[in-house]
Amino acid sequence: MNLPGNLYFKRGIALLMFMLGSITAVVAKDTPNLVITQSDIEQMRIAITQPGRFSDAFQAVRIQVDAQMQAPIVVPVPRDGGGGYTHEQHKKNYQLMYNAGVLFQLTQEQQYADFVGRMLLAYAQLYPTLALHPKRKIGFQNPGKLFWQSLNEAMWLVYTIQAYDLVNSGLSKQDTATIERQLLVPVALFLSEGQPSTFNKVHNHGTWATAGVGMAGYVLNKPEWVEKALLDLDKSGKGGFLRQLDELFSPAGYYNEGPYYQRFALLPFITFAKAIENNEPQRNIFDYRNGILIKAIDTTVQLSYNGLFFPINDAIKSKGIDTIELVHGVAVAYSQTQDSGYLDIAGQQNQILLTGDGLKIAQALDAQKQSPYPFRSVAFGDGAQGEEGALVVMREQQGGNSALVFKPAAQGLGHGHFDKLTWQFYHQGQEIVSDYGAARFLNVEAKFGGRYLPENNSWAKQTVAHNTLVVNEISHFDSDVELGNRSHPTLNFFEHTPQGSVAMAEIGNAYPDAHLSRTMALVKLPDTDTSLVIDVFRVNAGEAKLLDLPLHYQGQLIDTSFSIHSHQQQLRALGNQNGYQHLWLKGEATPERGLASVSWLNDNGSFYTHTSLTNGDEAFLFTQLGANDPNFNLRNESGFIRRVQGKASHQFVSVLEPHGEYNPAKEYTLQAESLITGLSFEQQENLALVRLDRAGKSYLIVINQMPENNQNKLNQTPIQFNYLNDSYSLDKRLAVYVIKDPQE
Amino acid sequence: MNLPGNLYFKRGIALLMFMLGSITAVVAKDTPNLVITQSDIEQMRIAITQPGRFSDAFQAVRIQVDAQMQAPIVVPVPRDGGGGYTHEQHKKNYQLMYNAGVLFQLTQEQQYADFVGRMLLAYAQLYPTLALHPKRKIGFQNPGKLFWQSLNEAMWLVYTIQAYDLVNSGLSKQDTATIERQLLVPVALFLSEGQPSTFNKVHNHGTWATAGVGMAGYVLNKPEWVEKALLDLDKSGKGGFLRQLDELFSPAGYYNEGPYYQRFALLPFITFAKAIENNEPQRNIFDYRNGILIKAIDTTVQLSYNGLFFPINDAIKSKGIDTIELVHGVAVAYSQTQDSGYLDIAGQQNQILLTGDGLKIAQALDAQKQSPYPFRSVAFGDGAQGEEGALVVMREQQGGNSALVFKPAAQGLGHGHFDKLTWQFYHQGQEIVSDYGAARFLNVEAKFGGRYLPENNSWAKQTVAHNTLVVNEISHFDSDVELGNRSHPTLNFFEHTPQGSVAMAEIGNAYPDAHLSRTMALVKLPDTDTSLVIDVFRVNAGEAKLLDLPLHYQGQLIDTSFSIHSHQQQLRALGNQNGYQHLWLKGEATPERGLASVSWLNDNGSFYTHTSLTNGDEAFLFTQLGANDPNFNLRNESGFIRRVQGKASHQFVSVLEPHGEYNPAKEYTLQAESLITGLSFEQQENLALVRLDRAGKSYLIVINQMPENNQNKLNQTPIQFNYLNDSYSLDKRLAVYVIKDPQE
Repeated sequence: MNLPGNLYFKRGIALLMFMLGSITAVVAKDTPNLVITQSDIEQMRIAITQPGRFSDAFQAVRIQVDAQMQAPIVVPVPRDGGGGYTHEQHKKNYQLMYNAGVLFQLTQEQQYADFVGRMLLAYAQLYPTLALHPKRKIGFQNPGKLFWQSLNEAMWLVYTIQAYDLVNSGLSKQDTATIERQLLVPVALFLSEGQPSTFNKVHNHGTWATAGVGMAGYVLNKPEWVEKALLDLDKSGKGGFLRQLDELFSPAGYYNEGPYYQRFALLPFITFAKAIENNEPQRNIFDYRNGILIKAIDTTVQLSYNGLFFPINDAIKSKGIDTIELVHGVAVAYSQTQDSGYLDIAGQQNQILLTGDGLKIAQALDAQKQSPYPFRSVAFGDGAQGEEGALVVMREQQGGNSALVFKPAAQGLGHGHFDKLTWQFYHQGQEIVSDYGAARFLNVEAKFGGRYLPENNSWAKQTVAHNTLVVNEISHFDSDVELGNRSHPTLNFFEHTPQGSVAMAEIGNAYPDAHLSRTMALVKLPDTDTSLVIDVFRVNAGEAKLLDLPLHYQGQLIDTSFSIHSHQQQLRALGNQNGYQHLWLKGEATPERGLASVSWLNDNGSFYTHTSLTNGDEAFLFTQLGANDPNFNLRNESGFIRRVQGKASHQFVSVLEPHGEYNPAKEYTLQAESLITGLSFEQQENLALVRLDRAGKSYLIVINQMPENNQNKLNQTPIQFNYLNDSYSLDKRLAVYVIKDPQE
Repeated sequence: MNLPGNLYFKRGIALLMFMLGSITAVVAKDTPNLVITQSDIEQMRIAITQPGRFSDAFQAVRIQVDAQMQAPIVVPVPRDGGGGYTHEQHKKNYQLMYNAGVLFQLTQEQQYADFVGRMLLAYAQLYPTLALHPKRKIGFQNPGKLFWQSLNEAMWLVYTIQAYDLVNSGLSKQDTATIERQLLVPVALFLSEGQPSTFNKVHNHGTWATAGVGMAGYVLNKPEWVEKALLDLDKSGKGGFLRQLDELFSPAGYYNEGPYYQRFALLPFITFAKAIENNEPQRNIFDYRNGILIKAIDTTVQLSYNGLFFPINDAIKSKGIDTIELVHGVAVAYSQTQDSGYLDIAGQQNQILLTGDGLKIAQALDAQKQSPYPFRSVAFGDGAQGEEGALVVMREQQGGNSALVFKPAAQGLGHGHFDKLTWQFYHQGQEIVSDYGAARFLNVEAKFGGRYLPENNSWAKQTVAHNTLVVNEISHFDSDVELGNRSHPTLNFFEHTPQGSVAMAEIGNAYPDAHLSRTMALVKLPDTDTSLVIDVFRVNAGEAKLLDLPLHYQGQLIDTSFSIHSHQQQLRALGNQNGYQHLWLKGEATPERGLASVSWLNDNGSFYTHTSLTNGDEAFLFTQLGANDPNFNLRNESGFIRRVQGKASHQFVSVLEPHGEYNPAKEYTLQAESLITGLSFEQQENLALVRLDRAGKSYLIVINQMPENNQNKLNQTPIQFNYLNDSYSLDKRLAVYVIKDPQE
């Protein structure tokens, strides 16, 4: 195991403890006994006779399955790739077998077992005749037989082995022998011994394979398969499910590619874990690595706002907590923790699973046991050890339910974006400072076959598509994914205090010769219900460069404190490459030294003012997305770029303030203008001091940027400093003081 | 009275019957007795002791008023114009007096009467000292004293006279004498004798004045004032409230300026009507003109979709049925009709009035008596006699809740748009083919003081901003409002059949030398749950012209059946004036002869395909709004213009089809492509025959365009016609036939 010594030791202990737990042999039990147990079934049989969410869900599934069973069984010879007919038919088949299996157990009606049995026998006839799939990608190591890639074949096994486990008791010995011999054993062997590189891979695809094979091991009484699934084919622990649990999530339960892919990756983890827990409870799989499975589920929920996931990296923005994977996750998390906050999420998901955990959710919701899910301010460390930067979430529930996402996270593999130190802001239910997410219309054939659009590379992944610094119109790492994956920002500190949250991060190799550092805070002003965003971005570039700091906003521009030279008769694209070719330049301005503010109105009825402290050297370029977009693939969103030319270093200081309300339905408008009348910035050694005049009051916001390794000093000895004529004592990373009224 | 003879006779009868009813003298009654009666109060006093919506509403108002009463009474000397401090303060005062008056009656606590009495006395001290308002518009005939225009002064009286009526019994004789002598009588005289031209005006402003003065007549026992309010200062019936009821609404209850202004105009009508009903029930005011008041309320509700008004003419698009004016309207309509459909609307409004009618609503909602409000397909005749065109609404509740708005309506005075024969389409809760509404950010100071923006004239009112034909890039009536008001389209016919709705309309003078005619239908295909829009637009222009038919859509362009030459590096404005200067030309195409389709995806998750039948002579110009918009005032919406150059006449034939579903949250996409594979059109004398091939079936849609005066013939003798080898018999305006499978 190619791990540093200390880490090796830690993993060794964890594995050892895990293995000790597994000494008990696998013993044959009543079926079913994977995710759903015989004991679950007994409870569920009672529940379907009583009114409530669970019996409603049961009735809905029964109606659907009964209708589907009217059609003839179709098990086609594999022919089509992803999205094609045979591909979709085999997907439908495994979902239908699973549902019919559940219904067999719940209703004890033989017709459901017969149906699943007939379909399994059809597969058992077909499977031995199959070679590798005709649409497999030649040269790649992951072909399937039923499907063009083995990922789908593993998913098929995960569902089908559960369906088999559910109907097993209703089938004849002869049939089960045929199904096992000709279908289940060959599929499990194909997915394990037959493709060692995928099976052993510490990657989401490997998790599906180990989950399918391991669960087959339980059902077919092959403890050897379970061991291999857990520990690699050679049982070394180099690969396998446990290694995946060690490496694919950070200690905080963060998944490197971001929440959109995290919820996708979750399902095989929690499915196999439930099967392990039910078959070998002594393994304490949910305690493994300090409860990493529940942390991974919980973190997926934390990485959402108003029901939708933070759309960092390649993410489709309408994806959120009601995704089926997280319905499974939340059910498991509630079952394991009895934490009533998960019921709040389950209520929003509004979907009840026909499983033992689903029953617990249904009954708890029927009994109205939910409590508000506690969204927290957290820096989710990135990387297997949590030391490769972080995804920082700052929240303030009062005064509009604000959330700030700050991203000094690692690259996130092939689905990552070149957006080191970018940020987003949410308020009153809406995204205000935005991330484009992925450029993709999922499954819409006319839009590049429903795959990631060319504009995903040319725009969505590029740095200028984000709210972070671009040097010389070149994206971070010069758009080199490999380099990006080898690099990551450093989170200097994160702290959540009663007055707000603050974080600072830096990266020195996003560009060969530029050092970027950003300090962001979500600050609650005393005696107000307003939370402001403070943003201090420093760049040191060695020699004179073109420095661009874009901000993508959602809403209609309302006002600027300076006049814009707007391009009225003609527009041109802002640049030629790296995303700039997609931006129309709508107007430009170079505000005079002082405050430069841009206000917009979001659909949520709130106004937002972004105020920059400028020296007269920042140009503001107002942009709209849509140039060089021949197929109208891009959303025509708006933004502005603060641009500094020919400087080797620069500090961008700004504040974002939500304010007022636009209510044309009730015909009133409140506070359409920013309340901020003054802003200044000064650095006293490690202290960043932001002074803000707002609504007749003056505030001093102090951020202690002392390096983390001196943090202990801070805790022991508060820092003394003077500002104007007063002296202050600071014992936190962030403090806000009301200072003398500026008029006095 | 300058009316045609027949009409004169009809009005005479109505007036005569009305006057006969009024012979009974006005008798002093228990107070209060305007909108709220003593008998209402008795019921309301009981209701506030019981749990339910009414007592909740009472508590909320009480908390609010109690807080407001903590502040000192401020009755400032008038100084500011609309939106300014003294203007807003006087508005707040009358609302507060009204609410405090209601609380006095409900709680019988003297403090509320004392408060209103003190404020009224403050006004009684101030009013005699006032000359005309310093900010009045010089040269206009409508100055106020408390306010810059008498419209606001009349609103003040409408609220204040009710407040006085509510607290009268709690004030001393001496105080009431002062208040009446120095305030209420002078205000009422100023608004009637003092400004005859406004008081007698058959216009919404006149309604506020007559309502205030008439209600003052009831309270101060001046029957003469009531007569003048009803019948003009000279009691001739040339002006006054009854004449306003005769002329400001069409017989169907449609208000010439459209629903946005209709809901605004409603309030004084229903307020005064309630006071008439309570004081002189023998007048049967709610039966006047066949129940025009209830029709006007009901029509306002009908002119909405998913809670929002159809945004024709100058309309702010977020305004809908929860507007306070319609809360009053729906309460009155329910009280008068006991129609439980109004409760459905009241439930959506979610606001309970502290009036007798409000109590009825609250109790009925508490008892869950509501039934779904029946939205209907109606041609709302425009103009006082309903003969100046119509606003046509076609609805289909199944398969997505479709609504088509077709607008062969009159101009609608100064707030009207130059959009004869335009249309809109709604589906699945959203606007799909859209109307821009007004260009205005209500009360947002930075946006042109919150008034109508310059772009309201330069864009929103122009013809190209709508979905109707533009000749030579000039708007209808060459943007001449006076000419527009003198003109109107003719509605040739409208019919609602089980297979759908159909209408045809024409106008000959939108352009001096062009005749426009449009036939639109919302057709339900047999054996499907799909409703399609059929659109046949004919223009005969005498000589060769540039003919543009724009379509403004809401959503993201997904596909076109032809390739677009898109402008990728540079955009230019499409034209120089009449709205064209605001459109960026993003791409162009000239599809070959045959079907030309454009598909888009709306945020509601449905796809829409607009399919045109072209001869190879229609160019498609793809546009985005936002050129020549230096202050970023416009929403950057998308559209395409079908353009024909150098032809004297043309027929645009097209079909709009909603289809499929995009559900990235659940990761499926259904039917992203149009199902329409064939479209042809042929005219057989008066019959328009549209043949449609869709999803393997062929349909023949036949529209009988026979002039209306031959309609009787149609009813007596079905029309026989042949199509392909079959013969048909048509006895309606619209019929849909399934014809032989095209493959057979």
